[in-house]
Amino acid sequence: MLYLLDLIGCAVFAVSGALAAGHAGLDLLGVMTIATITAIGGGTVRDLLMNRHPVFWMCDPRYLYLTCITGLLTVLYVRYFPSPAAALLVPDALGLALFAICGAQLAEQAGHPRIIVVLMGMLTGTAGGVVRDVLSNQVPLILRKDIYASAAIAGIVLYLLLRALRVSTLWAGAAGFVAIAALRLLAVAYGWQLPVFRLA
Amino acid sequence: MLYLLDLIGCAVFAVSGALAAGHAGLDLLGVMTIATITAIGGGTVRDLLMNRHPVFWMCDPRYLYLTCITGLLTVLYVRYFPSPAAALLVPDALGLALFAICGAQLAEQAGHPRIIVVLMGMLTGTAGGVVRDVLSNQVPLILRKDIYASAAIAGIVLYLLLRALRVSTLWAGAAGFVAIAALRLLAVAYGWQLPVFRLA
Amino acid sequence: MLYLLDLIGCAVFAVSGALAAGHAGLDLLGVMTIATITAIGGGTVRDLLMNRHPVFWMCDPRYLYLTCITGLLTVLYVRYFPSPAAALLVPDALGLALFAICGAQLAEQAGHPRIIVVLMGMLTGTAGGVVRDVLSNQVPLILRKDIYASAAIAGIVLYLLLRALRVSTLWAGAAGFVAIAALRLLAVAYGWQLPVFRLA
Repeated sequence: MLYLLDLIGCAVFAVSGALAAGHAGLDLLGVMTIATITAIGGGTVRDLLMNRHPVFWMCDPRYLYLTCITGLLTVLYVRYFPSPAAALLVPDALGLALFAICGAQLAEQAGHPRIIVVLMGMLTGTAGGVVRDVLSNQVPLILRKDIYASAAIAGIVLYLLLRALRVSTLWAGAAGFVAIAALRLLAVAYGWQLPVFRLA
Repeated sequence: MLYLLDLIGCAVFAVSGALAAGHAGLDLLGVMTIATITAIGGGTVRDLLMNRHPVFWMCDPRYLYLTCITGLLTVLYVRYFPSPAAALLVPDALGLALFAICGAQLAEQAGHPRIIVVLMGMLTGTAGGVVRDVLSNQVPLILRKDIYASAAIAGIVLYLLLRALRVSTLWAGAAGFVAIAALRLLAVAYGWQLPVFRLA
Repeated sequence: MLYLLDLIGCAVFAVSGALAAGHAGLDLLGVMTIATITAIGGGTVRDLLMNRHPVFWMCDPRYLYLTCITGLLTVLYVRYFPSPAAALLVPDALGLALFAICGAQLAEQAGHPRIIVVLMGMLTGTAGGVVRDVLSNQVPLILRKDIYASAAIAGIVLYLLLRALRVSTLWAGAAGFVAIAALRLLAVAYGWQLPVFRLA
């Protein structure tokens, strides 16, 4: 069940990567590459920092097949239908919530301090998108505006609070998951943003 | 013999890095840095992902001396002679072919699934150039056009096919090497490109 | 004592990261992220390459608290006072010198060849700033001009020379530290630059 959700999260992130590649005018292999990096980049950075080997997609090649094929299907789809970017907002929010809670739980199991748990969860959910933007030569979107990484942080903090109150991993995780997805979708719906810091 | 080829591959990639640094207007230390990263970046990413330690250039300092000196010699050369970019296409194709096959063989020996073997070979051959382009603030060239990473993939797939037919590592490697170099050079000569995916 | 210096170095680098984030117009979370990456990025790259686990800030969460809070205080400060960029040059030079010598000593203790010691020291002092610039979508400053990485290299070479003459780690380290800070500050004061390599 969790594994299936994980694959769905990867597929959604792969679509968002493929669309970004389309805006940058890449070739088909570039599309597959950016789709893959967006989908598995966050978990890869987490595994390298936490010294978890083999990195999660190395022992299970299905991740790579999935992201490459999803990237190609996105190219085909966009040729005949309007871009699915708006329709993707809901699955993207679910993917973010899932990856963030999974990453946080892995760091918690490894016995890391709480701020590391928060950071690892946030990284797992967002680092793939950051690499996608760096490769497309843009200031990463999530650093610029939008409640995105902040939704992940808020949900993980809620998860840790519930865990400190002895709520089980499962229920605390579910609560954190819902909080992240809800925050993210409300932020999109109402245009919430964090204050911006701008130097002349 | 292989070691010598490896050093030659590094030197060629270092020249291409130094030329990119010249186009970005970097200082001499920046030239050495970009030359080095271009030459050893692919192998470093591969070693980190595969948890191979020490990273290959850490136990053999000759790699770093070679890339730094090559970078400086490139600066000197370009002051008096026309840029060697065109003359570099052949050694660059050989370097790509060599690095890709070596990386693939390392992943194969470590017992990874085939798609990981393809990915590691492609990464070893191309990641250095990607980092070079990111540091020069450009959308990485190989994601944008040109049969480059795709030549590496095609050659590694041929290598794996031959291996599945019980051809020895040596001969399968040689065939893959020739295929990559030939594809790359034919692609340059005839202007072959992969289809581009462009969203408005 | 060294630990205190290390924290001060991190704080100074965090301020420089927060100012860069302000110029790129990021939100508050982006400010904390860039401040943190600038402060701990160099040491993280060093630890990953040298296979030192856990990465230094993973076992001591004070680093992350420090960099996040410093980033936020910078935002507050700049709202009421002129930007402290010029006032930061001295602590920044001290931070660079400290990080470079610490990184070099770690690589020396691990028994690496000398060119690796130089590279690890330089990376520890400068890689955070490079990632900061890549994320703000700029060609990294230290590759473009300024005696910065070169000051680090010169100081580490002095350190290694003294060590070869059997000077103790403490005194050789102190000499290297002073050399880096002095070179960096003199370079700023007199506008010294390395020759630039520019291709048409």
